[in-house]
Amino acid sequence: MSSLLPAATDTTGTPSPAPRDTLHFPPTHQAQLAPYLPSPPNTKPSLPHVTLTFATSLDSALSLAPGTQTFLSGPQSKAMTHFLRSQHAAILIGVGTAIADDPSLNCRLEGVGGFGGEGLEGQPRPVVLDPMGRWDVNGESKVIRLAREGKGRGPWVVTAEKSVGGLVVEGREVLGRTGGRYIVVPSTEVGGREAMEWRDVFSTLHDLGIRSVMVEGGAGVINGLLEPRNAELVDSVVVTVAPTWLGEGGVVVSPPKRFDQDGKRVPTARLKDVRWIPLGEDVVMCGRLLAS
Amino acid sequence: MSSLLPAATDTTGTPSPAPRDTLHFPPTHQAQLAPYLPSPPNTKPSLPHVTLTFATSLDSALSLAPGTQTFLSGPQSKAMTHFLRSQHAAILIGVGTAIADDPSLNCRLEGVGGFGGEGLEGQPRPVVLDPMGRWDVNGESKVIRLAREGKGRGPWVVTAEKSVGGLVVEGREVLGRTGGRYIVVPSTEVGGREAMEWRDVFSTLHDLGIRSVMVEGGAGVINGLLEPRNAELVDSVVVTVAPTWLGEGGVVVSPPKRFDQDGKRVPTARLKDVRWIPLGEDVVMCGRLLAS
Ligand SMILES: NC(=O)c1ccc[n+]([C@@H]2O[C@H](COP(=O)([O-])OP(=O)(O)OC[C@H]3O[C@@H](n4cnc5c(N)ncnc54)[C@H](OP(=O)(O)O)[C@@H]3O)[C@@H](O)[C@H]2O)c1
Ligand SMILES: NC(=O)c1ccc[n+]([C@@H]2O[C@H](COP(=O)([O-])OP(=O)(O)OC[C@H]3O[C@@H](n4cnc5c(N)ncnc54)[C@H](OP(=O)(O)O)[C@@H]3O)[C@@H](O)[C@H]2O)c1
Repeated sequence: MSSLLPAATDTTGTPSPAPRDTLHFPPTHQAQLAPYLPSPPNTKPSLPHVTLTFATSLDSALSLAPGTQTFLSGPQSKAMTHFLRSQHAAILIGVGTAIADDPSLNCRLEGVGGFGGEGLEGQPRPVVLDPMGRWDVNGESKVIRLAREGKGRGPWVVTAEKSVGGLVVEGREVLGRTGGRYIVVPSTEVGGREAMEWRDVFSTLHDLGIRSVMVEGGAGVINGLLEPRNAELVDSVVVTVAPTWLGEGGVVVSPPKRFDQDGKRVPTARLKDVRWIPLGEDVVMCGRLLAS
Repeated sequence: MSSLLPAATDTTGTPSPAPRDTLHFPPTHQAQLAPYLPSPPNTKPSLPHVTLTFATSLDSALSLAPGTQTFLSGPQSKAMTHFLRSQHAAILIGVGTAIADDPSLNCRLEGVGGFGGEGLEGQPRPVVLDPMGRWDVNGESKVIRLAREGKGRGPWVVTAEKSVGGLVVEGREVLGRTGGRYIVVPSTEVGGREAMEWRDVFSTLHDLGIRSVMVEGGAGVINGLLEPRNAELVDSVVVTVAPTWLGEGGVVVSPPKRFDQDGKRVPTARLKDVRWIPLGEDVVMCGRLLAS
């Protein structure tokens, strides 16, 4: 069976030579993921397809400690993440991850723009949820450097109305030069923070032409989206589990408690259409959230 | 390929009729688990083969809340657990689980004693780690009822020297009538509790003729055995993961933090020889702990 991505040689124009860090994800594995990928027709008229995806340890940790990046998954799962990125119009992370990881947020799969493909074809739009304007995006930020080198798109930063006045001019200019920008989404003050409804975040992205979003983390973002009231916004879930226990004190995926009508504890989120795909030492779980 | 268990019809004597709750675990799945099962020669002369096994949610929870039992895994994983029980001489749990779950701790796999097999053949010895003698074992305890009905063995209760005086006579008698007993293992007082070395617990069981132990939980027991200093005592790890997030406040598997020589956080436990076996909606991970 053939790849879901056009091969670099299928494109017209001048494909870029593939850099050494280009990744390959075999078509057989691509096919296993296919049922969970965005594909028209989208049944939610004003919302994008949302895929929630991340990698955890067996003890559900995303990283060893707050503010640190931990490399959890093996090379094959990494290639899978980049394949998923190539299938989405945008990748979204929270500002906690932007600050902790200085992430690349581009797609290094062979055949996409900058990695053997033409222009920026197949490169997702990085989106950072940063209600308070805490992310110091500057010329040294990895995502900006990659955009300058033609290996990724400039990021969109979702922020609150209130924070716009305080944004550093340099950030605005840096974003602008790479095709990035700030985007304002309505928010409410909750305990000194600007909280947004996920529906508003996604519908704003839809208004801007984004038809599919891959949400990559971190814990704050994931735990919020796993809350029952947000279940209908999430179309697919793809979780990589690595065979390790990071131990206490990690940044963990663990959504808020949930109770039924009788006040009895019940699981916060459950999945249907589950498929487990062993990939190297890791396993990749694909599924869909059960409506609450 | 044939089953690892003798079929009920292979046994001599009078096999018991198989009750309605008898479980079946197909030979193809048995074969996938084979490399992780106890089999002679045992390389640890005075210690049994130890398999650590349990079921968690994606957020590493064993149950929704302390003191409650949560049914996490599906019917196929349940059959697997009973197959594993049939392959071990003993199953061990902590007193927290004995009190919370009133567990059966027998093996309901077809072909073992009480389930189509002869006598108690293939029934593991239940072992409860109860240093303070907190478990109120009595005629109504499920494990005792099953032993009386010829569907399981009487439990051994591992306790501290100090607690022996306080043990209720009824408990002693109830255990005695089913072939169970109290066993004393050396302990040290740590913060008002009697802490035992896992090596002492296992070597005592070995002295009593037990050549393989399946440790089933709960969190206190598992987190202790995942500590680096106990890694060499554990021969195999078999974890079932169910596609659900139980949410905050659950009883979680998360061993203590670990640091390297430079004081840097590192994963507490890692696995080698990993195999992921999708089983219904769940996945079963088999592996071996890496030496620390
Ligand atoms: N293993 C993986 O797959 C993976 C993936 C990503 C990240 N990580 C790790 O995860 C850690 C970061 O996680 P984190 O929880 O600290 O950060 P995060 O989830 O990336 O960001 C959380 C922040 O996003 C904002 N936010 C989230 N939901 C919001 C909402 N509904 N409305 C408004 N703002 C919202 C808030 O910003 P304010 O605080 O400004 O209000 C919140 O504090 C890092 O250690 C990183 O390495 C791992
Ligand atoms: N999903 C599953 O596979 C699974 C399996 C089993 C249990 N569970 C769940 O787990 C929960 C119970 O977990 P838990 O952590 O409360 O209890 P637990 O692990 O069953 O028992 C813990 C107790 O065992 C004793 N203990 C443990 N290590 C010891 C050591 N080195 N030396 C001496 N004593 C030691 C201590 O007793 P003292 O407190 O008396 O000192 C300790 O408090 C229940 O909700 C149960 O349903 C789930």
